[in-house]
Amino acid sequence: MKDYLSVNDINSLPNWIDDAKKIKQNPLMDKALGANKTLGLFFFNNSLRTRLSTQKAAMNLGMNVMIMNFGNDGWDLEFEDGTIMDKGKAEHVKEAAQVLSQYCDIIGIRAFALLKNKERDEEELILKSFKKYASAPIINLESSLSHPLQALADIITITEQQQIKIPKIVLSWAPHPRALPHAVANSFVEIMHLYKANLLITHPPGYELDPRITKNTPIEYNQKQALEKADFVYVKNWSSYIDYGEVMNTDTNWMINLEKLGKAKFMHCLPVRRNVIVEDAVLDSSQSLVIEQANNRTYAAQLVLKYLLEAKAE
Amino acid sequence: MKDYLSVNDINSLPNWIDDAKKIKQNPLMDKALGANKTLGLFFFNNSLRTRLSTQKAAMNLGMNVMIMNFGNDGWDLEFEDGTIMDKGKAEHVKEAAQVLSQYCDIIGIRAFALLKNKERDEEELILKSFKKYASAPIINLESSLSHPLQALADIITITEQQQIKIPKIVLSWAPHPRALPHAVANSFVEIMHLYKANLLITHPPGYELDPRITKNTPIEYNQKQALEKADFVYVKNWSSYIDYGEVMNTDTNWMINLEKLGKAKFMHCLPVRRNVIVEDAVLDSSQSLVIEQANNRTYAAQLVLKYLLEAKAE
Amino acid sequence: MKDYLSVNDINSLPNWIDDAKKIKQNPLMDKALGANKTLGLFFFNNSLRTRLSTQKAAMNLGMNVMIMNFGNDGWDLEFEDGTIMDKGKAEHVKEAAQVLSQYCDIIGIRAFALLKNKERDEEELILKSFKKYASAPIINLESSLSHPLQALADIITITEQQQIKIPKIVLSWAPHPRALPHAVANSFVEIMHLYKANLLITHPPGYELDPRITKNTPIEYNQKQALEKADFVYVKNWSSYIDYGEVMNTDTNWMINLEKLGKAKFMHCLPVRRNVIVEDAVLDSSQSLVIEQANNRTYAAQLVLKYLLEAKAE
Repeated sequence: MKDYLSVNDINSLPNWIDDAKKIKQNPLMDKALGANKTLGLFFFNNSLRTRLSTQKAAMNLGMNVMIMNFGNDGWDLEFEDGTIMDKGKAEHVKEAAQVLSQYCDIIGIRAFALLKNKERDEEELILKSFKKYASAPIINLESSLSHPLQALADIITITEQQQIKIPKIVLSWAPHPRALPHAVANSFVEIMHLYKANLLITHPPGYELDPRITKNTPIEYNQKQALEKADFVYVKNWSSYIDYGEVMNTDTNWMINLEKLGKAKFMHCLPVRRNVIVEDAVLDSSQSLVIEQANNRTYAAQLVLKYLLEAKAE
Repeated sequence: MKDYLSVNDINSLPNWIDDAKKIKQNPLMDKALGANKTLGLFFFNNSLRTRLSTQKAAMNLGMNVMIMNFGNDGWDLEFEDGTIMDKGKAEHVKEAAQVLSQYCDIIGIRAFALLKNKERDEEELILKSFKKYASAPIINLESSLSHPLQALADIITITEQQQIKIPKIVLSWAPHPRALPHAVANSFVEIMHLYKANLLITHPPGYELDPRITKNTPIEYNQKQALEKADFVYVKNWSSYIDYGEVMNTDTNWMINLEKLGKAKFMHCLPVRRNVIVEDAVLDSSQSLVIEQANNRTYAAQLVLKYLLEAKAE
Repeated sequence: MKDYLSVNDINSLPNWIDDAKKIKQNPLMDKALGANKTLGLFFFNNSLRTRLSTQKAAMNLGMNVMIMNFGNDGWDLEFEDGTIMDKGKAEHVKEAAQVLSQYCDIIGIRAFALLKNKERDEEELILKSFKKYASAPIINLESSLSHPLQALADIITITEQQQIKIPKIVLSWAPHPRALPHAVANSFVEIMHLYKANLLITHPPGYELDPRITKNTPIEYNQKQALEKADFVYVKNWSSYIDYGEVMNTDTNWMINLEKLGKAKFMHCLPVRRNVIVEDAVLDSSQSLVIEQANNRTYAAQLVLKYLLEAKAE
């Protein structure tokens, strides 16, 4: 593996899950692997779980970690090719990516979708530019289109909790006051396609995700019907993809509650808005897996770092 | 010890002081204790000494440290129970505290008083919420009501410097242009109550601290008289507690100078405003203990971290 | 060596260059030297290369690193002597420098020129105050007047690349939309004076650097003529020194292109504005040394840290 940009970089999901569980049982087992290696984590957006779990994962591997909030600590970056840089941006990603590669053995980049322009977001200019110009491997810490470390933690959590061979897993849209990106939903759908599960998506009409990602996944517009006999309910808000970046529906009826959940396990990537996305009673119940998902972020990140370190050592 | 939230968590002050002095003589003596343990330091307010000394203490113990400015780097937190989170706050402390506990073996929290509403500040909502929902031990890095790492450093400093068995120690209010919290003064008074000293408080009328904290400590409104034959003068500004958060007096006559100080040692938690709280000549004299207090912050923090690590290991 | 404040602290440039190259060949050779030593990096301005390369250098030496953005994370500092601190500034550098010295074995300070007042900038109040009041050694991470870590990386890069004994090196001014400090240009000229090279400076009239720094270095106002048969072209913008801090000329004819460069190597400290300072074709060619300069920042910093650690150990 050269980079971890999306779940498409997973060559064998069963092997990855097995290895992640071994790491979770003994997080310090590869402590020597990362000695004198440096992970750089570079944030163009806020982060709590991704920042801390990836830092923790690197420390479990014995790596050094350097963290920067790009805009605040460093220089505003230019990503366009051929620009005359006489405005606010002081440095081009061509230099930045090559320079970071001098100091870091692995580079993590977080750069959210702006939700203003679909084509622009789909170019994933920031992530792709670092990938293009850096010589060090790149880890996607959430880009415009995907959040593959989250999806990996999610699938680890599901395999730990599933009671039957082919569980029914429902990805349900839920309301949110602000326009949110599609990255988490996209990566969850994509990793489900690598897994033997019965996936169903439910959302109000007009909230269809990119059909190139959902492919033939069934969509059920009636949330109640969709949730029936679900084993796992993964809840997430996203803004419209068709009417790009719009919030067309804040219908509180789509909020998840205990009744709708039935006997299913509740999943969410966090941060979650209580009593908007999901009612308190769900999060405070033993059916909620959100804290274990957050915990598994460490082992997902550690697995990816381990593979990248091993690939470099070859 | 499960947490270090206030000086009331000190079970035996003499033992603590003895152990802190051993650490100071040989700061690396417990280097193995913290190996592969992670301290998370989370700031809702600025910090210089607390941040650096606690990080240094953790490194002396061989711990890993992760630091975040909560608002800037992460998400705005909701602390109220049962809220419909459809406004600015993206994450509830219930999740945040549990999530941090997945990544950190010990969690430090700094959250100052807002000085708008006495009842609210006295709830210590931020600190107490982390305490309530985190499974990892919590260290108070200064809360609305107390600054117990500072108080511990202060008492270590006093025991190092005292010439007589029961020194006269005066806590003197001093003027300041802005409204400041009561935390440092509170914790200093509280730790003095655990110690054999002759404590006297002096301040202008109306600046009485919470009587549940000062208890029967004598108050002398005449600063000059109060300072007479003092061995230690601990100087600090605080806003009114009665007229909560108000600055009612900026009388420069309350500033400490060499003449008032006499032969006493001068103490302050820093940062200190020169020629407002105290004149240059005092800070630049050998009677000032402020730098040694700052130095002892490391050993105070290291003592607390050591005890918490040992308690976890049991 | 007690501090590294400017290239004047270099006692023997040939020895320094030799030692830096040894470090570059084996960056972990002094891993034990920094064990249990702490480097504090304190920024009053943004930083990418300086922050990461110095952190990396310290980790190569086995040191612990603590980093703070002074204004954001800590308290606004007062630098004037004798002030009545009743305004915005909460802490005096006298305390801050002494306090940092309690926690750090070596202290790095970045504080740019403000370019408002020549005399003020030339006092280098921030750097000099830390030097005056800190007991720990100080490293200049770029001050008003100089950037000696950059200059050291530059000379290492030149010695690696030079084909002839006494190369022709041209320092060329280039246009920039904002007023920039003189620090990089100053330190480059100063380190050239310690080196056997044929240095020439070219810039539009009115952009003369401080003559106390350039001394008898020849100046050629015709850029084309200046660049003729150059072996290295070091390009940098700076604002006027005579008309202090003014941008008097943004003549795009001064931009460097491949034709002007000829067979010379191109150098710049970064960040660089593409197609303003230099055209894309130069930066994207094999004649550009900018990434190797950035890489050598690590070894320059590591050399300085090593010398300071060794000096402390004596």
